[in-house]
Amino acid sequence: MSVRVIVTGGTFEKQYDALKGELTFKDSHLPRILELVRCTAPVVLEVNQLIDSLHMQAADRQRVLAACAQAPESRLLVIHGTDTLVETARALGEAGLGKTVVLTGAMVPYSVAGSDALFNLGYALAMAQSLPPGVHVAMNARTFPWDNVRKNREQGVFEALDQQPG
Amino acid sequence: MSVRVIVTGGTFEKQYDALKGELTFKDSHLPRILELVRCTAPVVLEVNQLIDSLHMQAADRQRVLAACAQAPESRLLVIHGTDTLVETARALGEAGLGKTVVLTGAMVPYSVAGSDALFNLGYALAMAQSLPPGVHVAMNARTFPWDNVRKNREQGVFEALDQQPG
Amino acid sequence: MSVRVIVTGGTFEKQYDALKGELTFKDSHLPRILELVRCTAPVVLEVNQLIDSLHMQAADRQRVLAACAQAPESRLLVIHGTDTLVETARALGEAGLGKTVVLTGAMVPYSVAGSDALFNLGYALAMAQSLPPGVHVAMNARTFPWDNVRKNREQGVFEALDQQPG
Amino acid sequence: MSVRVIVTGGTFEKQYDALKGELTFKDSHLPRILELVRCTAPVVLEVNQLIDSLHMQAADRQRVLAACAQAPESRLLVIHGTDTLVETARALGEAGLGKTVVLTGAMVPYSVAGSDALFNLGYALAMAQSLPPGVHVAMNARTFPWDNVRKNREQGVFEALDQQPG
Repeated sequence: MSVRVIVTGGTFEKQYDALKGELTFKDSHLPRILELVRCTAPVVLEVNQLIDSLHMQAADRQRVLAACAQAPESRLLVIHGTDTLVETARALGEAGLGKTVVLTGAMVPYSVAGSDALFNLGYALAMAQSLPPGVHVAMNARTFPWDNVRKNREQGVFEALDQQPG
Repeated sequence: MSVRVIVTGGTFEKQYDALKGELTFKDSHLPRILELVRCTAPVVLEVNQLIDSLHMQAADRQRVLAACAQAPESRLLVIHGTDTLVETARALGEAGLGKTVVLTGAMVPYSVAGSDALFNLGYALAMAQSLPPGVHVAMNARTFPWDNVRKNREQGVFEALDQQPG
Repeated sequence: MSVRVIVTGGTFEKQYDALKGELTFKDSHLPRILELVRCTAPVVLEVNQLIDSLHMQAADRQRVLAACAQAPESRLLVIHGTDTLVETARALGEAGLGKTVVLTGAMVPYSVAGSDALFNLGYALAMAQSLPPGVHVAMNARTFPWDNVRKNREQGVFEALDQQPG
Repeated sequence: MSVRVIVTGGTFEKQYDALKGELTFKDSHLPRILELVRCTAPVVLEVNQLIDSLHMQAADRQRVLAACAQAPESRLLVIHGTDTLVETARALGEAGLGKTVVLTGAMVPYSVAGSDALFNLGYALAMAQSLPPGVHVAMNARTFPWDNVRKNREQGVFEALDQQPG
């Protein structure tokens, strides 16, 4: 029951580049994270791309879909920027992959104080191990089907289309 | 489908006391953590005790059991020290509560660099939301039934009694 | 022998804004930092501005100069962005204030893993307590007079005009 | 004007051992710290011992004295546990080394959230570069001569024998 973790970048993976003076991408944090949580569950790591999801084009999204389709595993976890996470979820959902796919991300980079990255990763990995086939978004300790979720940009949380938090 | 998080202390909650020069307990980190992950899932927090699990006596364990039995929620997450986590899991399992109970902890305190606390919390909370009734231990990105788990102290990981990691 | 710490912002003070998805300014970290280092030295804190030094205009620099000139203290520490720190140092140096002024900053924000902010602050505060009148730049565990220093942007370090590190 | 940094351990250097469940010593943090602050000042690093200063015996203190006496540098910075830092300072002071020696430490380990280690290191290194010969204790953004300092254990700060903070 191995889970493939497909990394696409997003806030989760951003690191500070001291010379440029901005948050950007270097390597994925995932290998280090899996080590420090002493992960003994079967996990396969695939760095698909390292990109800000605001910059994701249709071709980039197709690369995520292709990785999901070609993966030998039937359980997939996609690390994604939150800004267009729902859009990628829709692309995966409409493709009818017949696999369990969970997408998650972070509102604060792993490398920044007060990050939600580790929590979200743990939560989403558990859901990727547990949920039946379908495409799901896991954020804020909640899980949403791909066709009933949106990012509330004012509050910085994900919510169901038919049920906004107060 | 609210989850009650029952805090008992353990490495997860330890904080450094600069005057004493040692790791000890102050307040629970959970309120701050639930805030920084922008948790919108229904969660009820109960600080049952703040104790090193090596110091847990039968009476302390009974207090955890009583909290689980009396909780109005049918889904419970217990934050516990890893050293006697399996022993408490057994006490809860043998009690036949008819609820979903997940126990987790941390090998490195939340307040120390390289902690696994946030990951374990996210993972275990997802399992508390998902699993059927029964008592489970969630550590190292794996979930074990209470009667088939032990802590491997040499490697610092949890494993099934009948299947040790290599 | 009180030291006035004049905060202008810069990388040192940047914090991650999860809603905007970028590093920006909120409050100064200095009050919290002085508390955690249990500072018992006489220090007066003045938040002059919170600005990226790349965006500093002549008027902003004049505000720093005015703060230095008007300060009742004869020992001043200026927290500044590194990109135009040397330019502000020159403005202060040419003003002939007759006070000890030390400028420092950070290459990585205080709130980001691997920050140099605390080290630089400690180093620069000691120099502000020790040096004779004059304007100095304190970075990379070195101190430079204002008229013999430049930022080496390729290496991310400060160096003397007449002596570059290898 | 090279400074020799003589590491003896202390709270500054403590790291969490997840298997033992306690703070202990592994390697010195100093090489990593000097790298992240992009130190370009001439610094020679010597790991003399890695020990809790409460466990320091006369022989251990002699080893610090020997390192100070034998160092080719005339400017020395000693990283030390705070509990017996003053005792070692006295041993060095009474030896009449004719060198500038600054002792510092940390109340919270470098590896723990809210540590004062980086600040103290920066402060003390600047003092080691600046002060005339003599043995000094640098803590809490203040500098004390070795024969007029004590650790106030109730408040967790260092203070002059003849002038306690309010």
